[in-house]
Amino acid sequence: MRSEDICATLKTEDYVVQPLVDVSPPKWHLGHTSWFFETFILLHHLPDYSCFNSSYAFVFNSYYESFGTRVIRTNRGNLSRPTVEEVYRYRRHVDAAMEQLLSLPISNELNMLIIMGLNHEEQHQELLATDIKYILGHNPLFPTYKEITNSVEIDFPTDEFIVTKEALYNIGYDGNGFCFDNELGRHTVFLPAFKIARDLVTNGQYLEFIEDGGYLKHEFWHAEGLDWIRNNNITSPLYWHWIDNQWHYYSASGIQPVRLEDPLTHVSYYEASAFAAWMGMRLPTEFEWEAACNKFSWGDRWEWTASAYLPYPGYIRAAGPIGEYNGKFMVNQMVLRGASIVTPTGHSRSSYRNFFHPHLRLQYTGIRLAQDIRIIHR
Amino acid sequence: MRSEDICATLKTEDYVVQPLVDVSPPKWHLGHTSWFFETFILLHHLPDYSCFNSSYAFVFNSYYESFGTRVIRTNRGNLSRPTVEEVYRYRRHVDAAMEQLLSLPISNELNMLIIMGLNHEEQHQELLATDIKYILGHNPLFPTYKEITNSVEIDFPTDEFIVTKEALYNIGYDGNGFCFDNELGRHTVFLPAFKIARDLVTNGQYLEFIEDGGYLKHEFWHAEGLDWIRNNNITSPLYWHWIDNQWHYYSASGIQPVRLEDPLTHVSYYEASAFAAWMGMRLPTEFEWEAACNKFSWGDRWEWTASAYLPYPGYIRAAGPIGEYNGKFMVNQMVLRGASIVTPTGHSRSSYRNFFHPHLRLQYTGIRLAQDIRIIHR
Amino acid sequence: MRSEDICATLKTEDYVVQPLVDVSPPKWHLGHTSWFFETFILLHHLPDYSCFNSSYAFVFNSYYESFGTRVIRTNRGNLSRPTVEEVYRYRRHVDAAMEQLLSLPISNELNMLIIMGLNHEEQHQELLATDIKYILGHNPLFPTYKEITNSVEIDFPTDEFIVTKEALYNIGYDGNGFCFDNELGRHTVFLPAFKIARDLVTNGQYLEFIEDGGYLKHEFWHAEGLDWIRNNNITSPLYWHWIDNQWHYYSASGIQPVRLEDPLTHVSYYEASAFAAWMGMRLPTEFEWEAACNKFSWGDRWEWTASAYLPYPGYIRAAGPIGEYNGKFMVNQMVLRGASIVTPTGHSRSSYRNFFHPHLRLQYTGIRLAQDIRIIHR
Amino acid sequence: MRSEDICATLKTEDYVVQPLVDVSPPKWHLGHTSWFFETFILLHHLPDYSCFNSSYAFVFNSYYESFGTRVIRTNRGNLSRPTVEEVYRYRRHVDAAMEQLLSLPISNELNMLIIMGLNHEEQHQELLATDIKYILGHNPLFPTYKEITNSVEIDFPTDEFIVTKEALYNIGYDGNGFCFDNELGRHTVFLPAFKIARDLVTNGQYLEFIEDGGYLKHEFWHAEGLDWIRNNNITSPLYWHWIDNQWHYYSASGIQPVRLEDPLTHVSYYEASAFAAWMGMRLPTEFEWEAACNKFSWGDRWEWTASAYLPYPGYIRAAGPIGEYNGKFMVNQMVLRGASIVTPTGHSRSSYRNFFHPHLRLQYTGIRLAQDIRIIHR
Repeated sequence: MRSEDICATLKTEDYVVQPLVDVSPPKWHLGHTSWFFETFILLHHLPDYSCFNSSYAFVFNSYYESFGTRVIRTNRGNLSRPTVEEVYRYRRHVDAAMEQLLSLPISNELNMLIIMGLNHEEQHQELLATDIKYILGHNPLFPTYKEITNSVEIDFPTDEFIVTKEALYNIGYDGNGFCFDNELGRHTVFLPAFKIARDLVTNGQYLEFIEDGGYLKHEFWHAEGLDWIRNNNITSPLYWHWIDNQWHYYSASGIQPVRLEDPLTHVSYYEASAFAAWMGMRLPTEFEWEAACNKFSWGDRWEWTASAYLPYPGYIRAAGPIGEYNGKFMVNQMVLRGASIVTPTGHSRSSYRNFFHPHLRLQYTGIRLAQDIRIIHR
Repeated sequence: MRSEDICATLKTEDYVVQPLVDVSPPKWHLGHTSWFFETFILLHHLPDYSCFNSSYAFVFNSYYESFGTRVIRTNRGNLSRPTVEEVYRYRRHVDAAMEQLLSLPISNELNMLIIMGLNHEEQHQELLATDIKYILGHNPLFPTYKEITNSVEIDFPTDEFIVTKEALYNIGYDGNGFCFDNELGRHTVFLPAFKIARDLVTNGQYLEFIEDGGYLKHEFWHAEGLDWIRNNNITSPLYWHWIDNQWHYYSASGIQPVRLEDPLTHVSYYEASAFAAWMGMRLPTEFEWEAACNKFSWGDRWEWTASAYLPYPGYIRAAGPIGEYNGKFMVNQMVLRGASIVTPTGHSRSSYRNFFHPHLRLQYTGIRLAQDIRIIHR
Repeated sequence: MRSEDICATLKTEDYVVQPLVDVSPPKWHLGHTSWFFETFILLHHLPDYSCFNSSYAFVFNSYYESFGTRVIRTNRGNLSRPTVEEVYRYRRHVDAAMEQLLSLPISNELNMLIIMGLNHEEQHQELLATDIKYILGHNPLFPTYKEITNSVEIDFPTDEFIVTKEALYNIGYDGNGFCFDNELGRHTVFLPAFKIARDLVTNGQYLEFIEDGGYLKHEFWHAEGLDWIRNNNITSPLYWHWIDNQWHYYSASGIQPVRLEDPLTHVSYYEASAFAAWMGMRLPTEFEWEAACNKFSWGDRWEWTASAYLPYPGYIRAAGPIGEYNGKFMVNQMVLRGASIVTPTGHSRSSYRNFFHPHLRLQYTGIRLAQDIRIIHR
Repeated sequence: MRSEDICATLKTEDYVVQPLVDVSPPKWHLGHTSWFFETFILLHHLPDYSCFNSSYAFVFNSYYESFGTRVIRTNRGNLSRPTVEEVYRYRRHVDAAMEQLLSLPISNELNMLIIMGLNHEEQHQELLATDIKYILGHNPLFPTYKEITNSVEIDFPTDEFIVTKEALYNIGYDGNGFCFDNELGRHTVFLPAFKIARDLVTNGQYLEFIEDGGYLKHEFWHAEGLDWIRNNNITSPLYWHWIDNQWHYYSASGIQPVRLEDPLTHVSYYEASAFAAWMGMRLPTEFEWEAACNKFSWGDRWEWTASAYLPYPGYIRAAGPIGEYNGKFMVNQMVLRGASIVTPTGHSRSSYRNFFHPHLRLQYTGIRLAQDIRIIHR
């Protein structure tokens, strides 16, 4: 299964640590996604299913208030047990039971739950990849995750902009497949005309911002963004290191010089927003992004938008634990659109809404610029 | 001047303290608003103006990054000097100079700046009133601010809802008078049909939420709202005290029993949002509010909306210090609409956008409920 | 009364603020010392005494666990009421009642309590003086406390050392007057021979330490001292300011250049200890100090010793609130001996033990060096 | 080697985590002690020694300011690499080189260094054992460390006290073998007569304290002790759990009911001191302990004394890194005497001084009571 492939090159020790409160240990991701299948599906729908270890509910629960006491997130990195081997045994136990379940007749409701479980696992695959990068990339020995020998061919970035005209647009999921509840409530929005960049901002463009003293020019920053860069001594994207008078970048194959033509990644919303302001532009709203996204290629970097993460019209939080999935996070976070190079195939779609606090940058976040077409005068 | 009237019943000591990082000492408000006139108007536009005390720039500056080092906000409550009397002398000095300036011919640009300064002072009058309430309401002696003998006649609240139809609406300031830059960029939004309450939520309605265990029912709360109420042991609105088996409320005339028919006030966005969810409803967006506000009366309580504080289309941060006024705060805050009982007359308008972090409740914040008319099914 | 004399030049506002958790607002000191007389003496011993305001117990209690809930210390600076005028009225009320009590026959036990109350007030007079210095000395306007026109004649400091021979010495209070319980338990200690400086370390000597990079030389510091100077960016004594390429010092009469021959003051135990190590010497123990103190003059600066604050043999904590006076603080603090220029006349004696956490330096603390006479070889 | 024996039953994952800032991951202990031999001995004294991995200095250095940047202690639990296997390989590399060195002629100075390295490793063996207990004992699965089938025969505790007479005693190390520098400076102290308990306080005695509400009786506690128990909700010794209406204890073989006759362990200095006060007694000073320790048996529990950790007369911090070993910690800590059940054989002696901050209780700490013989009257 893909989750385990992502971990293929890890040492046992790499599965255990939690160097940041926003990172989870890989073995926790592996255990948690199986716990999700066990708790929401197997215990209710597979007759005679035997729970692998009832105390795992305590260890692998995440944010689900509906289930008793939760382990506070900061503690995940303190738990040496269950061991990695036990977690893999747990996964095999759950996988086998799921196979058994799938050989039985499946109701529609159950089918929905299974699809939900798979999508949940795909989300954690993405997190697994970024959390592993954080774990290895913050080790002073800078271990290699995977040798990447053939560099990906990338199209040389352009500075073209795509014009989108003023109109009513429909926003939200519109198909018959799976989507998360936060994409539902398809609705109409009115958008004034705008321009949006065909390509993502590159390392080279961002380097100009750095060299122009962009991190010191308060006029381009949010007040809370300034506090964040000052309190944390932020002067470059995450994983950038100034070595031998040159910017380097920690990637899966170790430390290497920054390639100027590569798309920029691992910046916070604060940095994305300040960079756009420095360019005399702005970030697109999530509605602009969705309205225009069929005119450019996307999927390499999660793209920060200028939209706060809020419910669509008509959004209703589902009852029970499933209802905790998205709605409870709809405050103080910004929307990202698109997908990234570690997003599982098939997991992305144009209506997909990801979201992070504005200071986070573990994800492969990037910047696509936008601009108003007519400036409102006064 | 009205700012000084607000302070008329204060003791000297009340001007000095800062019991919360979000509160400023009254003497700071008084000094800061005069400093604003001195710095942005008098020093540039009144020939031969003599600066009262050049070190005041250090003390009374607020968040303007453009001006050297700022006093960090938490330190305002440590400064016993300048004394209250000196601050009043400073105000008289600045007021006299402003009168002199107003006797001279005034350019359009200067006129705009003066209007800006007056509106800035009005904003601080509102803050003064709420900060004084916080200072006195958190003193164990619960001092009286002002005896209020004749209770205001209030219309008995109804539970009527006003229906607003699906349409395109124009949002933003549209007149010829003064407005803040965050109201500009008048633009069109498409709104689905919705219902909005004619009256504000009352203390009695909120008490039912409390008595139903609303503060313990996680399913109605944002995850960060839950953290906030748990970490701060929040179980009721600010200024509510459980005394002799009855809820009491600290008001300008001291501690008194909560009156059930009064509009609820001093709740955070988290509480407002949880209450609305408990009612099976929601808060209106700021666009819905503006589209419907001519059909109900408002102005008693600042009303939390479901909208994050973000720029309107076409918003451009002005150059220089004036540009720091609003744009730099456009992240992590929620919009309030309307006005409150301590808003200076003439300072409110239907396009006015106030904003606070979701956990703050020093302001006279209230709740107006809204609801979708058709639920989106799937 | 002397407490009020100390405050004679204060503005009302100066009485209110608390710029550091270890500082109390002057009005709190004034109220607290009267509360002490009221609570421990008047309420029990003056028939028909009428309590001034029963809620003052809540405001002016300090650390006495025996009396209900205490106001946590950090909150003292938030209380604008009672006003300064009310506090003075409270003091006159208590003073009048004390005079009335003193006109009645006094039991021995009551006499002891009164003497205790007076000594308690003297301790707070010392704190008042240092806290006022901190309040004014941390105001960016650097207000003058008192013009000092005639500089004190000081003996030019020497670098002489006094030799004290190996012997048994008696330590602890030995007279018939008042002393605190921590001085009791007169007992014998055996001391090896040692040398102790006749004079205190001067500013000039300490400046050499600074200029030699003493704050950067880890080998002279305790590990926790290093953490303290690094986390707080400490590079000089408190109240020293580097202005116009010269060290200045905030004193009662404002900012003035550091005088090299003056005794050093306002250093922490960590700094005192590091300086002594840099000199190749050490601080004296409190026993050495007491054994030798009749051979040098003291009383200008509280002198850090190398002794932790611990009970003497036979120490017993008194029952009830009085017992909380000293014993509960006998951990994590270092002993100071002597007295300082703000110690009330008659309050000092050679057995007096003051104590502070090793990082504090609001007091007029100084350094007297000591040295072993024979080095133990191995 | 014994260090590795201690880890014999661990899973790889147990070597990695750091659940508390005062705990180090077992693999860090293993790497650090080998690094000590490599850095202070092999690199200087074994010709042609090849450093295993120069970046290990960064990872396995501890508190030695003399060696470049140190990894702050909180980060040790974030490092998944070097792996456990690599650490063991490192140990074999260093062990082999040490064997080679030992086959060469050894100077006296080198001999001293080697003995120092062995004693350093023994100290870490003790820490290893306690840190492992903390890691496993704070895992919700409560893993077994080692099955202990045959319970140790223990002598039934008595309540006898041993009288020690007033006299001059010699304190400090007096032999020809190895000792740490903090034991040197053998010196004379004068001690009044005192009584000291023959046996350690038992669980049963401490349970009476708990059941009498000892944790709530402020009169027995230091002020900072009260803050500590309140802020951390401390109501029993570490590793005690209230399960099924009975006190249980986490031991090497898992959770088991508390045995009343066993010696109490895992209490802080604050708890030890409060318990002694509740008994109407006190803790012995380290001098009393050393003067009397040949009259009782010890070595099961580290015993808290009433003495702060300070240098003996004549103590001199050695130059260079070795000098950082002890002297820099001589502030804010209390002395423990004796040894514990996890102290390596031969590592203890009557002059040995251990030390911890007063709130720590990971060690097998215990209580031996003492009492003055004559109470000083006044």
